[in-house]
Amino acid sequence: MTNPVLVEVLRGAVVESGHRGAVSVFDADGKPVWELGDTARPVFPRSAVKAIQALPLVESGAADAYGFGDRELALACASHSGQPAHAELADAMLAKAGLDRTALECGAHWPMDHDATVALARTGGVPNPLHNNCSGKHAGFLCTCVHTGIAHRGYVKAGHAFQELVRDAMQAVTGAAHDVDHCGTDGCSIPTYAVPLKNFALGFARMATGAGFEPVRAKAAKRLFSACMAEPFLVAGTGRADVALMQAAPGRIFVKTGAEGVYCAAVPELGLGIALKCDDGAGRAAEAMTAAVLAKLLRADEALAAKLIEQANPAIESRIGAKVGSLRPTAALS
Amino acid sequence: MTNPVLVEVLRGAVVESGHRGAVSVFDADGKPVWELGDTARPVFPRSAVKAIQALPLVESGAADAYGFGDRELALACASHSGQPAHAELADAMLAKAGLDRTALECGAHWPMDHDATVALARTGGVPNPLHNNCSGKHAGFLCTCVHTGIAHRGYVKAGHAFQELVRDAMQAVTGAAHDVDHCGTDGCSIPTYAVPLKNFALGFARMATGAGFEPVRAKAAKRLFSACMAEPFLVAGTGRADVALMQAAPGRIFVKTGAEGVYCAAVPELGLGIALKCDDGAGRAAEAMTAAVLAKLLRADEALAAKLIEQANPAIESRIGAKVGSLRPTAALS
Repeated sequence: MTNPVLVEVLRGAVVESGHRGAVSVFDADGKPVWELGDTARPVFPRSAVKAIQALPLVESGAADAYGFGDRELALACASHSGQPAHAELADAMLAKAGLDRTALECGAHWPMDHDATVALARTGGVPNPLHNNCSGKHAGFLCTCVHTGIAHRGYVKAGHAFQELVRDAMQAVTGAAHDVDHCGTDGCSIPTYAVPLKNFALGFARMATGAGFEPVRAKAAKRLFSACMAEPFLVAGTGRADVALMQAAPGRIFVKTGAEGVYCAAVPELGLGIALKCDDGAGRAAEAMTAAVLAKLLRADEALAAKLIEQANPAIESRIGAKVGSLRPTAALS
Repeated sequence: MTNPVLVEVLRGAVVESGHRGAVSVFDADGKPVWELGDTARPVFPRSAVKAIQALPLVESGAADAYGFGDRELALACASHSGQPAHAELADAMLAKAGLDRTALECGAHWPMDHDATVALARTGGVPNPLHNNCSGKHAGFLCTCVHTGIAHRGYVKAGHAFQELVRDAMQAVTGAAHDVDHCGTDGCSIPTYAVPLKNFALGFARMATGAGFEPVRAKAAKRLFSACMAEPFLVAGTGRADVALMQAAPGRIFVKTGAEGVYCAAVPELGLGIALKCDDGAGRAAEAMTAAVLAKLLRADEALAAKLIEQANPAIESRIGAKVGSLRPTAALS
């Protein structure tokens, strides 16, 4: 099936581009609440499932052993912008386990945040693995390995004992088999498994409610969600959509972006999980789709819905800062 | 109508994302040679038509008066990467007309080339309008104004005498009315008009052949095309697709990218013009589509076609440089 156009890009009065996608909203009992497009198609969740991938960090007792609070747990679930606060905290997490940045196998890249890149260059610096947007997740992985006695070398590889722990958590939470035929490699070198989009919606409803989880998992999921909602800057960075969306209603909205236009989200008070993917992989469209879906689900709170609708319609500016267009969710999302 | 998927994005063995689009190939007599998708839909050409927008620079005699050769004319048609050679040449062009960067109304942004941004930051620099990817086009605009006695202030605005000159050229070359209802503002503040995609294919066939043009225009078009094909680095920059495509067959392929997934191109030896747009605006997909279309049109030259097919299937790498996926044109393009 052909997914519907969910976001249009306007320049002046003309639709310049359009983004198709699929959206799935589930409750924790496995009931689909809202489905748009083909939600059965296998999708790589990429970084959108970092909160699930962080479950072993909490469940193993590693987080407690190293004294991790909201800040560290938020960073473990982050695709951060590589700003100094992010890189320094990832470094501090590694130090708690007696490691340093040389243990990270995620690779290095310049900070996602442009000002951070300029500042790093100004001081003659070069990026190291701590600036990688996934360094907090990897620091959490390494801390878990050290705490549980798993030899950490090669921890990014499919089949490594630690990645099998992560895969077990992913399968249990989403209810979908993660098989080798649907395995790809993420930008930070860990395996990512394509499963039906709707399974991520179900998984995030479970994460938000704990429904169907053993008490240890339910508590760990709640703790990770609370941490991200308390420290959204550490989950993303300056000017990022995830920060704006979680700050729109502190403690009431969880969102997490993934590469190639994926979002996973949850509204704990409604017991709902959300997963969406923009067909073409565009982050700008996935952000607008997520804001529009949240506005619809939370429409009973009119002030909040208005704020979210504004975030679903971001302006496009010229190089002198004049508004020349905007993104606009289509009727399918309203 | 729904445009076909023209490029898929693979990660491992799984299709992660897909890009739809439309392609139009015309000869200079107005005969469609190959059409895919909805080529009648109005599309903003953005920067893909800079060679047409540079016609007044040559036709007015300004280029000759200021002694502009291939390098300056290539930069006038460029969306350059803001590397030192680009910024310095734009500055030199302005100086020929007695102007400097303060006359540019395009706005400033950090160089598109990441290494150039880092180098600028390292020396404590900040971007100025010369680093704007459109500064060469704007320098050409300003030189034309000064040479022809048009007061240049406000030269970016729709309705300004200079923009009317550009609009006249655009209408004559494409054969499509450029009306106010389909006018948007480009990132560099000049007007851009949405007209049917197929009219750009026709226009670029005419630019490549001079068919139907007065001798002055035919000569100017040929000179601009020759300049771009002789100096592809100045049209784009290090590592850019436009450079690779034009260098694949020096003097035989003209290509120019535009924002939001547009490409205009021509194969002078075949007398053909090409215009395409990726529906969702993705540059990565538009590049692959352009390479695939050129490979098909030039398939008689097997070595060249093989090189172009390679460019149509670029690798996707992880942060440690491992190949984890690739783009792949679909059967519709082969």
